[in-house]
Amino acid sequence: MGTTGLQPLPPGGCIGILGGGQLGRMLALAAAELGFLAHVYCPDPDSPALDVVRRATVAPYDDEEALAGFASVVDRVTYEFENVPHFTAAFLESRVPVLPREAALRITQDRLVEKRFIRSLGFSPAPFEAVGSVKELVHAVERLGRPSVLKARRFGYDGKGQTVIREGVDLAAAWAEIGEAPAVLEAFVPFVAEASVLTARGDDGMLVCYDIVENRHENSILRSSRVPARIGAETAKEALAIGRAVAEGLDYVGMLAVELFVVREEQGETLVVNEIAPRVHNSGHWTQDACFVSQFEQHIRAIAGWPLGDGTRHHDAEMTNLIGDDIEAWRDLAQNAGLNIHIYGKSAVRPGRKMGHVTRLLPYHELDRGG
Amino acid sequence: MGTTGLQPLPPGGCIGILGGGQLGRMLALAAAELGFLAHVYCPDPDSPALDVVRRATVAPYDDEEALAGFASVVDRVTYEFENVPHFTAAFLESRVPVLPREAALRITQDRLVEKRFIRSLGFSPAPFEAVGSVKELVHAVERLGRPSVLKARRFGYDGKGQTVIREGVDLAAAWAEIGEAPAVLEAFVPFVAEASVLTARGDDGMLVCYDIVENRHENSILRSSRVPARIGAETAKEALAIGRAVAEGLDYVGMLAVELFVVREEQGETLVVNEIAPRVHNSGHWTQDACFVSQFEQHIRAIAGWPLGDGTRHHDAEMTNLIGDDIEAWRDLAQNAGLNIHIYGKSAVRPGRKMGHVTRLLPYHELDRGG
Repeated sequence: MGTTGLQPLPPGGCIGILGGGQLGRMLALAAAELGFLAHVYCPDPDSPALDVVRRATVAPYDDEEALAGFASVVDRVTYEFENVPHFTAAFLESRVPVLPREAALRITQDRLVEKRFIRSLGFSPAPFEAVGSVKELVHAVERLGRPSVLKARRFGYDGKGQTVIREGVDLAAAWAEIGEAPAVLEAFVPFVAEASVLTARGDDGMLVCYDIVENRHENSILRSSRVPARIGAETAKEALAIGRAVAEGLDYVGMLAVELFVVREEQGETLVVNEIAPRVHNSGHWTQDACFVSQFEQHIRAIAGWPLGDGTRHHDAEMTNLIGDDIEAWRDLAQNAGLNIHIYGKSAVRPGRKMGHVTRLLPYHELDRGG
Repeated sequence: MGTTGLQPLPPGGCIGILGGGQLGRMLALAAAELGFLAHVYCPDPDSPALDVVRRATVAPYDDEEALAGFASVVDRVTYEFENVPHFTAAFLESRVPVLPREAALRITQDRLVEKRFIRSLGFSPAPFEAVGSVKELVHAVERLGRPSVLKARRFGYDGKGQTVIREGVDLAAAWAEIGEAPAVLEAFVPFVAEASVLTARGDDGMLVCYDIVENRHENSILRSSRVPARIGAETAKEALAIGRAVAEGLDYVGMLAVELFVVREEQGETLVVNEIAPRVHNSGHWTQDACFVSQFEQHIRAIAGWPLGDGTRHHDAEMTNLIGDDIEAWRDLAQNAGLNIHIYGKSAVRPGRKMGHVTRLLPYHELDRGG
């Protein structure tokens, strides 16, 4: 496995973060804990990450002048979302190290390329077919059946850019619904549980996997995550192997999440790889409270060329997202001494918008960290 | 016990912080985790807290216009240091709630008033004499003996504004050394250990004490803190009682530290109260990593009118300050997976300057947090 051979960034160095949402905000806070400056770049002046940094660039992602200025004041660039435009990444890469590297974006920005990559590693994505027209959609549905899910190859998140092909759904309408964009049709996976594996990989090739997470989605948005996941030991081992293989396959530097479906069949549990997120991930927020080093600090350590930290979990944990007007219960949440509260400081409450999260810690008696 | 009857501040509210050092910085980071805006006010544009906030006021503490502008954009004011000028606190208090309240500053800004307050609660400060002239110093040294410590009544920290009266020290020179300012002479306390009690008190009168900390100073600067402290159970109980009594005696809202000397005599351990710090305290930094809710979050919760959080400790901990060029070992520290690293982002390294701290966590098997 290659490494970039980055010199470790000294405290006081500046980390550029593309994206001003809650992930960028929590990355900036983690960078500050290690003594780094964080410089946020985002188009929207009302972004929550802007509140926790002294310096920021508010400009579109294709503004060359703004990008050049940004590149000139930061020592590393990272991002909070995988849909960084190719132009932006390429422009910045020519001036300053951008981590995770280009391959991670190229592969994860396109569902079709991502699924082929997963297969090339010997793992199973959901059965899929490439779809480029209504005609191809008709054929794909014949092969994969209903229900199945039509997803645009690019720019989807939180259920956006996808539609379920149930019995009776008109295929031309479905094709129109996702904007007639290049797509994949995925077979429905009859999963019994959703899980994710969070892997950090350092510039030196060192790997740290967090304990496997069990996730629950509602309306395609993550509602809660719990650790430990209620899956078999062999399944957990396989999930860790997937995380490691994906990180190594991408020669990755930083935090990476792989979302998994757990399928229970007569012969036991198997894992289907749903998708790869080349960044810190909502299903890893519990690591802030339950681990020695959080996913945010791991990401900063990795891209700064520092050794990874100890990702050991010292508590069982359940993380619950505060979505939309859930946040209005902040008084009750504050009164619940069993919760660790994280609120993102977003000014506007909108349905489906992630406003914060709470983590409940439970004792984990088995832990012994050694001397 | 009275309360201010503050309405709990909703997320998005703005917390003004007087002081731009590492304590202000860590308060701002804790405020951000709860979804508050933090607005730092400090005179020095090169202050580390400025790097983690979007909005700040850089102005002298007696700049009325700047103070008025600051007061108009914040919902609460707090401070990272007890030497807030009286004018500043009074000016702000007439416009916005300042917490902890005026009594805390008035009493702790003057060593003589503070010692009398401690006595009035039934606890023991080091034996002391007020000193206002060389003549009074001569008499005080006759009564308290040598070695003893001459301390200016006001504006001392980290050993500044004080001098030890050893055998042979010329008293006129000592008096000149502390600037001929009103002072107290303190008897030397033959302590076997230094300790501190960290107490949070909410606006509702609720009290949370953290486990007693054992401290080690070098050259009058805190070098390390460990929990649990190696003191008897009865001594720990007494220390907690002191923390609670001081917080209640001041009708205090926020985090408060009381520094203690542990004296071992034939009849057992006794505690001498050294001083009170009406703020988050260096000896509480381990709470960031070893407790469910840190001293910084407790302080923000208290002054925001939120209920206090759970200060339970889930690990044993040892915190070591990175002082002056200790910070140059950052590569080695980053490589030590047993350390949680906190670096303050100060640009200039100076001897005696606190540059960061590291916390080592060790298992604490006894903990059961309940459901």
